[in-house]
Amino acid sequence: MTRFRLTVEYDGAPFMGWQRQRHGPSVQGAIEAAILKTTGETVVVTGCGRTDAGVHAEGQVAHVDVERAIDAFRLMEAVNAHLRPLPVAIVACDIADPEFHARFDCIGRSYRYRIVNRRAPLVLDRGRAWQVAVALDAAAMHDAAQLLVGRHDFTTFRSVRCQARSPVKTLDLLMVKCDGPVITIAAAARSFLHHQVRSMVGCLRLVGEGRWSAGDLAAALAARNRLALGVNAPPDGLTFVAASYAKVSADFTPER
Amino acid sequence: MTRFRLTVEYDGAPFMGWQRQRHGPSVQGAIEAAILKTTGETVVVTGCGRTDAGVHAEGQVAHVDVERAIDAFRLMEAVNAHLRPLPVAIVACDIADPEFHARFDCIGRSYRYRIVNRRAPLVLDRGRAWQVAVALDAAAMHDAAQLLVGRHDFTTFRSVRCQARSPVKTLDLLMVKCDGPVITIAAAARSFLHHQVRSMVGCLRLVGEGRWSAGDLAAALAARNRLALGVNAPPDGLTFVAASYAKVSADFTPER
Repeated sequence: MTRFRLTVEYDGAPFMGWQRQRHGPSVQGAIEAAILKTTGETVVVTGCGRTDAGVHAEGQVAHVDVERAIDAFRLMEAVNAHLRPLPVAIVACDIADPEFHARFDCIGRSYRYRIVNRRAPLVLDRGRAWQVAVALDAAAMHDAAQLLVGRHDFTTFRSVRCQARSPVKTLDLLMVKCDGPVITIAAAARSFLHHQVRSMVGCLRLVGEGRWSAGDLAAALAARNRLALGVNAPPDGLTFVAASYAKVSADFTPER
Repeated sequence: MTRFRLTVEYDGAPFMGWQRQRHGPSVQGAIEAAILKTTGETVVVTGCGRTDAGVHAEGQVAHVDVERAIDAFRLMEAVNAHLRPLPVAIVACDIADPEFHARFDCIGRSYRYRIVNRRAPLVLDRGRAWQVAVALDAAAMHDAAQLLVGRHDFTTFRSVRCQARSPVKTLDLLMVKCDGPVITIAAAARSFLHHQVRSMVGCLRLVGEGRWSAGDLAAALAARNRLALGVNAPPDGLTFVAASYAKVSADFTPER
């Protein structure tokens, strides 16, 4: 048996999310089905993070155990062939340490959220960004965002369905950049609560509009109450960018 | 009557191209139909450049004359509403000098071509880039590209259907940049021949693969013969980025 580490890109639009669902398509289920077609094995693909319906990924990481002897390149090529025409692809596939765990070994996750700040409907960014017609002050958003960086109780920014044991997380980075009409928000942390990025972005939008001051954002955080949330940003603009791991897992060389 | 200058974004995938066609959807036809619904007028929208089927635009420029008194913002909003759900939007609309001509007054056109150089099928870039699985040397492509910059007879890189009077054009810029697996080719000139950018990119791919030397590219140019062309790049990766005009047109202020 060989454990493989997969790096996965997907467009979240047609899926109910990463996690396998009984009543609808999922990214996890699509990859498991493609592996079944490749090796004849019913496997469980374990992802680094469960993304919601409509959320995209450039660098989701997952692991899977395969019995059949197959090298990483051939597994990737075959699984990608079986995934067509779904908007999912394995962009990297490597043999991993048999102990490697995509979720528990992950020491850093990064997301990107894109807002397109203009009146005209989205065309080339359709389904890939949040269109906000009212003018936003990206510098004010960035300044306010710094109040969220650090170790906090993020209950306000947590879905009621969140399964994390603790609402206390350390947010390492929340950076707002503006390039013409495109406002990009980069977020990085060891881990996030369910809906945390979208909830933070939704509140930053209120700051950008001038409806919330930086103080209002600080008060929402301090409230530790979901009812203090301004608004949740839609999933379209969110992309899981990358997962990072301690060096040992990536350097593992199998003996066979 | 007022002449408006429109800046148009579109996804070329569902269209037979910019130009109105009798037997299929076009971007020009879609905008003309949306204006008809807005003002009741049958108009002709004149574009800066005719893009082929599948080619995208971020900043196509067009002009149109409208009889009905309507301000630029309301025209843009109404036309965008009528364009839905087609992937076309007017991203800017301004009153122009009555003499302004989107095509003849244009003094600079720029295009971007995107190659994604990887084995895995495209997902987030599907329909927006050319997937090339064999490894490309972007630095070699950039160096060779400089042989095409300047005033040349571009007959080799010209579609047999090209209607330009002369095959001699001045290419101002052809720059190849590499960012991870993404190779971006920027091209700028006063004007281009039909298929010129895609033909140049197709040959640069051969250089990137090592199948052509820079000398082979120079020889293809010197041949002034379409049969010397290596390969035409597919339309998916091509985007019309911007058109530039002498300052006078943009600064025009109507007297009414």
